[in-house]
Amino acid sequence: MNNQNIKLAKFAGFCYGVKRAVETVKKLKLENPDKNVYILGELIHNTDVINELESLGIKTIYEVPERGEGICVIRSHGEAPEVFEKIKNAGFEIVDLTCPDVKKVQQRAIELAKEDYFVVIVGKSNHPEVMAIKANADLYSSNVAVATTIQELEPYEEKIKAHNKVGVVVQTTQMVSTLNTLVSYLNTISKEVLVHNTICKSTAMRQREAKELANESDLMIVVGSKKSANTTHLAEILKNCTKTIHIENDEELNLESFQNAENIGITAGASTPESIINNVINKIKGGK
Amino acid sequence: MNNQNIKLAKFAGFCYGVKRAVETVKKLKLENPDKNVYILGELIHNTDVINELESLGIKTIYEVPERGEGICVIRSHGEAPEVFEKIKNAGFEIVDLTCPDVKKVQQRAIELAKEDYFVVIVGKSNHPEVMAIKANADLYSSNVAVATTIQELEPYEEKIKAHNKVGVVVQTTQMVSTLNTLVSYLNTISKEVLVHNTICKSTAMRQREAKELANESDLMIVVGSKKSANTTHLAEILKNCTKTIHIENDEELNLESFQNAENIGITAGASTPESIINNVINKIKGGK
Repeated sequence: MNNQNIKLAKFAGFCYGVKRAVETVKKLKLENPDKNVYILGELIHNTDVINELESLGIKTIYEVPERGEGICVIRSHGEAPEVFEKIKNAGFEIVDLTCPDVKKVQQRAIELAKEDYFVVIVGKSNHPEVMAIKANADLYSSNVAVATTIQELEPYEEKIKAHNKVGVVVQTTQMVSTLNTLVSYLNTISKEVLVHNTICKSTAMRQREAKELANESDLMIVVGSKKSANTTHLAEILKNCTKTIHIENDEELNLESFQNAENIGITAGASTPESIINNVINKIKGGK
Repeated sequence: MNNQNIKLAKFAGFCYGVKRAVETVKKLKLENPDKNVYILGELIHNTDVINELESLGIKTIYEVPERGEGICVIRSHGEAPEVFEKIKNAGFEIVDLTCPDVKKVQQRAIELAKEDYFVVIVGKSNHPEVMAIKANADLYSSNVAVATTIQELEPYEEKIKAHNKVGVVVQTTQMVSTLNTLVSYLNTISKEVLVHNTICKSTAMRQREAKELANESDLMIVVGSKKSANTTHLAEILKNCTKTIHIENDEELNLESFQNAENIGITAGASTPESIINNVINKIKGGK
């Protein structure tokens, strides 16, 4: 397969917020070898990274215990204020690694709630980042809705119409097309719609660049967890441009299925480590 | 043609702002028989109405003379502040019949300009209502753009990106789909987009009802001037629903062209007098 050109997207893999979280957690354990270091929830959607952290003595926990000691890390997705309280009350020291971009979304949602906007959060209601944003806004208003489709907003239509104004924030890795669909609907039922496009720069640039690469490729390979929202969005967007496959790692790669592809583009989600991307590239180059 | 059902839309013809303007001007002349009564620009896009006003002694003028006396009426579209000044300085008494809905758009645009938003006015740059809105906003900001297409906004892209926030107002008879196209574009280049959907209720209801009627009709007839923005928008929207013809009056009606239509829906723009709509209905019923 010597005729294949492989091009890796510039913005593939770890984003700033994830890189910062992984590096800080490792440093934290190094500087505090005698302290327990816990992370609440998976730091990133990648088993290899979770295992590596585990081997360094950094434990992933999925619930806050009644009592405990040591450091408890808040991952880049952020957490609800009541979770912070619970961790503090249990006796842990908190290290907050909420991505600064995510913090901004929380702040915007709080501002909108305080200013009496009907708050719409664009995102999946079961996404941890969305749950934390909502929990923050809920403290200031009972008019907060979460949606990625018009159908999810329709039950609020009468309430939104009765309200004077709607404010919109967006989960940082959402697609701008989802935002636009919801805003177009809101424009038909509300006289004032304030949109904070809080999709993070990293996501926007990753999507834009990947689309450009897709337009000059016969095949796009998106590498990353199928649990990761930003990775699945990436694959969804690229499917509209060219043939696209979404794999978690090189093991899922079936070389025979794209023998005829001349120009192959590769990109990866924000939680995909470099090593996994490299394995995929090597497997294609090696043709094995 | 006895098998044809003809249904007239409820919201066909004069809107509140136009009705108010026509009635007030007539009353004004009645109450001031000895005073000159001028209207600056055509009160509505309809020759019959203009002629009727003329016969009552109400003159339509297209420019403000250097000097003059009597009453000068501002039509429902509104005017630039400098035109108000010019009329006053020429010696006229001003009667301002700017539609209250249009006044609200002007006020919103001024507020956005004062609050340092980059102001986008959705509308045709040569529409009198848009020109007056823009002139009001221009007094407070040099960052005001007018557009109905993304292409018209593109020259401002760098300026909008550099600006922190964009505020949007809409000419009262625009289509919400045009607003949504521009807002979707603005969401990709600006972090904060504040949308005041100032499309007037009358336009929104007229469009919504006409669409419903179109969905149950084989043919829609839109009656009104081809110079009228709201009438042409109406025809444009209905063309996506069913076969639609846009005529100015019954003389343009070619009965042979729709002999096979069973259900005919009729609607009319905001500047179409009832008499013209009735003439159209009578011609179809008479089958002549």
